[in-house]
Amino acid sequence: MNLSIIRYILGHVLKIEALLMMLPCVVAVIYQETEGLAFLSIAVLTYIFSILLRSRKPENTVFYLKEGCVATALSWIMMSFFGCLPFILTGEIPSFIDAMFETISGFTTTGSSILNDVEALSSTSLFWRSFTHWIGGMGVLVFVLAVVPLSGGSNMNLMKAESPGPSVGKLVPKVRATASMLYKIYFTLTIIQIILLIIGKMPVFDSIVTAFGTAGTGGFGIKNDSITSYSPYLQWVVTIFMFLFGINFNFYYLILFREFRKAFSMEEVKCYFFIVIGSIAIIFVNILPFYKSTGKSLLHAAFQVSSIITTTGFVTTDFNLWPEICRSLLILLMFIGACAGSTGGGIKVSRIILLFKSFLREFHSYAHPKSVKKVSLDGKPVDYEILRTTYVYLAVFLCVFVTSILLLSLDGNDFITNFTAVAATLNNIGPGLELVGATKNFGHFSVLSKCVLSFDMLAGRLELFPLLMLFYPKLWKDSVNSRLSRKKRKTTM
Amino acid sequence: MNLSIIRYILGHVLKIEALLMMLPCVVAVIYQETEGLAFLSIAVLTYIFSILLRSRKPENTVFYLKEGCVATALSWIMMSFFGCLPFILTGEIPSFIDAMFETISGFTTTGSSILNDVEALSSTSLFWRSFTHWIGGMGVLVFVLAVVPLSGGSNMNLMKAESPGPSVGKLVPKVRATASMLYKIYFTLTIIQIILLIIGKMPVFDSIVTAFGTAGTGGFGIKNDSITSYSPYLQWVVTIFMFLFGINFNFYYLILFREFRKAFSMEEVKCYFFIVIGSIAIIFVNILPFYKSTGKSLLHAAFQVSSIITTTGFVTTDFNLWPEICRSLLILLMFIGACAGSTGGGIKVSRIILLFKSFLREFHSYAHPKSVKKVSLDGKPVDYEILRTTYVYLAVFLCVFVTSILLLSLDGNDFITNFTAVAATLNNIGPGLELVGATKNFGHFSVLSKCVLSFDMLAGRLELFPLLMLFYPKLWKDSVNSRLSRKKRKTTM
Repeated sequence: MNLSIIRYILGHVLKIEALLMMLPCVVAVIYQETEGLAFLSIAVLTYIFSILLRSRKPENTVFYLKEGCVATALSWIMMSFFGCLPFILTGEIPSFIDAMFETISGFTTTGSSILNDVEALSSTSLFWRSFTHWIGGMGVLVFVLAVVPLSGGSNMNLMKAESPGPSVGKLVPKVRATASMLYKIYFTLTIIQIILLIIGKMPVFDSIVTAFGTAGTGGFGIKNDSITSYSPYLQWVVTIFMFLFGINFNFYYLILFREFRKAFSMEEVKCYFFIVIGSIAIIFVNILPFYKSTGKSLLHAAFQVSSIITTTGFVTTDFNLWPEICRSLLILLMFIGACAGSTGGGIKVSRIILLFKSFLREFHSYAHPKSVKKVSLDGKPVDYEILRTTYVYLAVFLCVFVTSILLLSLDGNDFITNFTAVAATLNNIGPGLELVGATKNFGHFSVLSKCVLSFDMLAGRLELFPLLMLFYPKLWKDSVNSRLSRKKRKTTM
Repeated sequence: MNLSIIRYILGHVLKIEALLMMLPCVVAVIYQETEGLAFLSIAVLTYIFSILLRSRKPENTVFYLKEGCVATALSWIMMSFFGCLPFILTGEIPSFIDAMFETISGFTTTGSSILNDVEALSSTSLFWRSFTHWIGGMGVLVFVLAVVPLSGGSNMNLMKAESPGPSVGKLVPKVRATASMLYKIYFTLTIIQIILLIIGKMPVFDSIVTAFGTAGTGGFGIKNDSITSYSPYLQWVVTIFMFLFGINFNFYYLILFREFRKAFSMEEVKCYFFIVIGSIAIIFVNILPFYKSTGKSLLHAAFQVSSIITTTGFVTTDFNLWPEICRSLLILLMFIGACAGSTGGGIKVSRIILLFKSFLREFHSYAHPKSVKKVSLDGKPVDYEILRTTYVYLAVFLCVFVTSILLLSLDGNDFITNFTAVAATLNNIGPGLELVGATKNFGHFSVLSKCVLSFDMLAGRLELFPLLMLFYPKLWKDSVNSRLSRKKRKTTM
């Protein structure tokens, strides 16, 4: 394995993080908070560390999928490590495990919190906490791609490891162009949301951090009651933007290039739309007797459905108290998740479509054993390789899910708490039900459980394989072997 | 589709059922119960119906997998329909839905009951109820195979549709020989258990029905407290036999032919053994403080683990009260299930092994993209086709699972009740947790929920596809079309 290129990429990722950490420092200056010093010193520390990592340029810049996976997984772990240090230094989250949990939750756009009282945090820390969502939403490595010069197809392997969903980059052959285009769309949508929120009389600071939380489909708020206390107009704006950020960004890409027909015939987007509308309708009917107001019921239904399916996790009401059918439906939406190629988490709508289509093909092959029918998406036949990884993804997902529940159950909490805590972290949503419900937090878990849930958040964000690869012993054995043999060769030469 | 051969097979299945229904009549004579008359009249009715179905021999006895699926699914539905009629006629289960639920639960070896007071039933009905487990355990169609003459490979398609697990009949090329050999092993093991129970001073009637429940891994008892009130010796006998009936019958087959090395190196059996021992150990440690007796804790742990993993569902204690880790572990075992080729349900150990091996292959392919490594089981490479159906099986399983939970949640019960009720029926176990826990029953569900759960029991027993095929519209359209075109051809000739 090409370890030096991994080191080099890590250095670049940390450089970017150090620079991004200057933004909370600016906030500290505006609000005249001393917490800014903590951020400044950690930013400097991170930058120095990044220089050390980048000091020696790698001889060989070509790297394969395995290097892509390892680089991605390690980048996210390192980013979270350095990103959590300011919270410890300011004393706002004194425990390392808690600070790490909160930061991983931020970067992975999960939004699960261990904090009892969010409002006690300084504006500087609140800003950084929500900013991690925005950074994590699109992915840092995508950004690195636009900056670091790598040879040929290498970028593709990095992007494949970090981007959500079964396929990537079908539209633009040049990865670098795609990366910068994606960031432009992301940036523009965020700005529009901030403006719409400010028009609705939300304070500027609140508007910015709420937009960060929405854009990254993260869900960290700056109020203890999340979005509950804002006006219906503001809640509608957030609802619509959560929905928009859950759409496959290829859709916006096509819109930009005026390929409207192609955009609106994307099967994933149509299916996503259909699921959202259907779920809102079912929940609306069921909570109408609960709220006794059409407008309120519609808003709550639309808000919670958009929030859960896009795995954002903002709340406007305690859905833990809703009828069981609504709770079950929301749990289901947690797993479906948003579109591939969006900032949302979960299994992804396109994977669900592929699974359904392969059921139908299976039935078809039972009825007509000799016919060969291929699964197709958007009119194109889907490569068998993609189908296979979709299946394996689902199976690995279940495996991680079950193991996590078993480990969590050692804490002695009830099954729904454990089940929804794992569902909420592995799908990068945020809140679950019962003890991790909308009005509760993750602070009460044991250290082991917090570690398990942190792992799940990272595994969910990186779509399992890159993170799990780190635990595949053969990968490391091979790389040690190749190093040894290279040294041997050098000495014998 | 060859509808006439399906009709013909259905006729044979019902003939066998009518004959089997004479056994409870014998019990009625012994216990001098008038309920016997109900069984006798239904047996006659069933026999007459079977004669009608068999009246015209099909012109063509060759049939394909689709006919195998449809014949299997319809056989099980018809068997359950006629099997439930005596309960209604005796007035012991007056509601049709309830009687159907109970009978499907019997034939599918689930063991979920809607009865509050089992002990109120007549001995005749109790016998029939447990006998359905024994019949359903090995499958009626396997029996039909040994009786009805079908051409060449056709039997294989029937057996493939009814037998549990991803592969079948690897050992004996002649299906008929396999079928009768399987029944011999099944019969012998049952007899041994009955003898061991009688030695332990269990009444003869109790011994027979308990052995039926164990052999079919069903779980219907004749006491309201299941196996709780029997002596520890008897509970140990049941524990061991539950475990034995969960083993792949190929194992016994190899033992019979003195191929001991081959038998003990079966990966599935080794893995099954390992899971059982491991789970018993974990639960034993966790319930030791609860019972304060090593013997009692070990017995309860071993009994419940064997009962759940083999999907039998007998109980000796209310595990609903155990620590959360034990409850979670038992829920996990519910899904794993017993070995393929046993009478047990669940996803099956061999499928779990295949899934794990394909994860490893996936990691391997990430690390070495150019190498081609095949998944192998018992030293032989596994056909890609089997892997694919394993994946699709898992995905369809999840799909049915989720849909069922959503439909059940309309009743307004809590999530654990719904979740474990579906898990217990789809995996053919019996009891779940909370409102369907070991000391509760399924009587309180609405008619819709009972229909959903009945569907799940059948879907679980027939491994999803045969039953779901009935709902695949194209299958019927094709068959109608071919009938029409045949008629057309005849008229134009």
